[in-house]
Amino acid sequence: MAQQHLEPTEPLSGHVGTVTGDALAGYLRSQATEFLRALRQHRESGGTAAGAEDPADAARALRRSVRRISASLHTFRPLLDTDWSESLRPELAWLSGTLGMEHAYESRLERLLLALHRLSGAVFPVQGTVPTAVPTAQPAPAPAPVPVPDRGNLTVGAAKAGALLDRQLTLARTRAHSTALQALGSSRFHAVADNIAVLASEVPLVKSATATDLHPLAAAAQERLDDAAAALPLVTAGHPYNAEALIHGLSPDPSPHPQDAPWHQVRLLLRLHRYAREVLTPAVDVRLLTASQCLDRHRDASEAAAAAASAARTPRIAPATAYALGVLHADQRHEVEAARFAFQQCWQKQTVST
Amino acid sequence: MAQQHLEPTEPLSGHVGTVTGDALAGYLRSQATEFLRALRQHRESGGTAAGAEDPADAARALRRSVRRISASLHTFRPLLDTDWSESLRPELAWLSGTLGMEHAYESRLERLLLALHRLSGAVFPVQGTVPTAVPTAQPAPAPAPVPVPDRGNLTVGAAKAGALLDRQLTLARTRAHSTALQALGSSRFHAVADNIAVLASEVPLVKSATATDLHPLAAAAQERLDDAAAALPLVTAGHPYNAEALIHGLSPDPSPHPQDAPWHQVRLLLRLHRYAREVLTPAVDVRLLTASQCLDRHRDASEAAAAAASAARTPRIAPATAYALGVLHADQRHEVEAARFAFQQCWQKQTVST
Repeated sequence: MAQQHLEPTEPLSGHVGTVTGDALAGYLRSQATEFLRALRQHRESGGTAAGAEDPADAARALRRSVRRISASLHTFRPLLDTDWSESLRPELAWLSGTLGMEHAYESRLERLLLALHRLSGAVFPVQGTVPTAVPTAQPAPAPAPVPVPDRGNLTVGAAKAGALLDRQLTLARTRAHSTALQALGSSRFHAVADNIAVLASEVPLVKSATATDLHPLAAAAQERLDDAAAALPLVTAGHPYNAEALIHGLSPDPSPHPQDAPWHQVRLLLRLHRYAREVLTPAVDVRLLTASQCLDRHRDASEAAAAAASAARTPRIAPATAYALGVLHADQRHEVEAARFAFQQCWQKQTVST
Repeated sequence: MAQQHLEPTEPLSGHVGTVTGDALAGYLRSQATEFLRALRQHRESGGTAAGAEDPADAARALRRSVRRISASLHTFRPLLDTDWSESLRPELAWLSGTLGMEHAYESRLERLLLALHRLSGAVFPVQGTVPTAVPTAQPAPAPAPVPVPDRGNLTVGAAKAGALLDRQLTLARTRAHSTALQALGSSRFHAVADNIAVLASEVPLVKSATATDLHPLAAAAQERLDDAAAALPLVTAGHPYNAEALIHGLSPDPSPHPQDAPWHQVRLLLRLHRYAREVLTPAVDVRLLTASQCLDRHRDASEAAAAAASAARTPRIAPATAYALGVLHADQRHEVEAARFAFQQCWQKQTVST
């Protein structure tokens, strides 16, 4: 697991030796094995927390390995059997998307309820301190599942907004849970799992793969990332309180935040780059991980802001509820801006030092 | 007028020669003369824009001189006849407060309508560009009167919120205008004006004043400022996106922003220091002016946020209106945070270089 062996940054120093398709095969085999292990674990837990292992951990591990296999199929495409990889990739995307929804709704609700508590100046009952936005370029810590705080000391508006979001996002999460369980029992899923089981022993490399250097393909992935990041409005993002993220906060545009899309795209390209790098070296680049976390935070805040705006469009809500949702929306849009600032700070260091 | 002769910063270098009560007398005489000139100008314009001079300019000039006379009476109290200054100071405070209200409501409305347009992603019809928060430590430029933008391209919620704020703040402003006109015609005002007319020729210094150095009293004013500024949470303020200003955004506390009070207090102490400095040297310290403008912006945003919150408590408003007011409130609270950051950046430079 990448996050377990954090080491001092060790930039990938050019072509130190040649890494070929054999390394790719090894990486894919280990990810496939990881997938099968997580799947077994998930089945043993029965999809509920009754088993010895947390099914959420198993689902997370499943998604982890699926993302990595999918990314490798993309980045190192020329080294792999085309028919096989072209048929597997959309299936992996479907699986990753389906398995991720429940967790996404859960953490979105947590984020919004914590924000409501912070905005109410309420003392958070569990941790004893009010969780605030992270002050500097440090990314937010990985979101650990937190118990939903009680609503004892919220205003009526904040409490009602919290109840409304709770209702809407819990419903969405429950549906996502059913969909994921259904997916895991489907013949479509069994076909994917069979495919990955084969991959655990036999990687369908093309003939030339064992003599092909992986570096140019990995470098191309990095180049796509660098180009996309360079096109981001990083100068603006580097000026604190530039107020850009909220510019369309009250826009009549039904899709109010097209400005987020390039950042989401860089988030995906950064992930592809990180996974390609994993194939080449076991060393974790902490700055890449930090930059990734900034963009995760950006995505989470962006979606939480959209959920608050969407809840505010519920018919027949009280004005106090709508007001609280407006404050909450703006707060999360500022989190979006804060995440961009944090990414800019991190990325700037990155490009200077490499 | 201080803002007209901006010069490179020239820090007050210790006790260069002795400045005594004579300088104070000269300063008070010139401020009193300025007051009388502005008063004449205001009367000639008849309180309406029909005259050759803008009555708003005249009112501003009146407030300027009243603030300076009042501040000097406070800072250099031991050099002035006690009975006289103790009786005049509350009258000056009353006058300054009464005369300032109309302008305050006017600029608050402008600020909020501009923000609503920015939040709607609307192109501002007059200046052609969207006014955004100032990116770095630069303070916002002095608010020039801007025409109220039209509401053609706002969402329903933003348009309704704008109309509600327009109605409420225009009413308050009209009342403040009447109150100010009434005050200027009152016998209470005439007594103040007579007092200031005497001051223009005859400053009631105590006997020892012409032999007393003003520096210790001015230094005491600076010390009060420095102490109060040092007690501000400047470390937090210096971390961009610390999310402090919105912490009580949904607080059940009826007075939701006690955290602003120390900043407002520093704003007043900074003004006292600046005016005391004016008595001693004609050189304008640009950094002090910048710091002052940051705290003006802090105060303006704080009051605009409160006005948005207050408008949201209007009975029977639509949820969409309340939502827009919530977004607007949070936006202005972030302006509060941005102003604190800008002040911190400016103040840090200040204390390092002096």
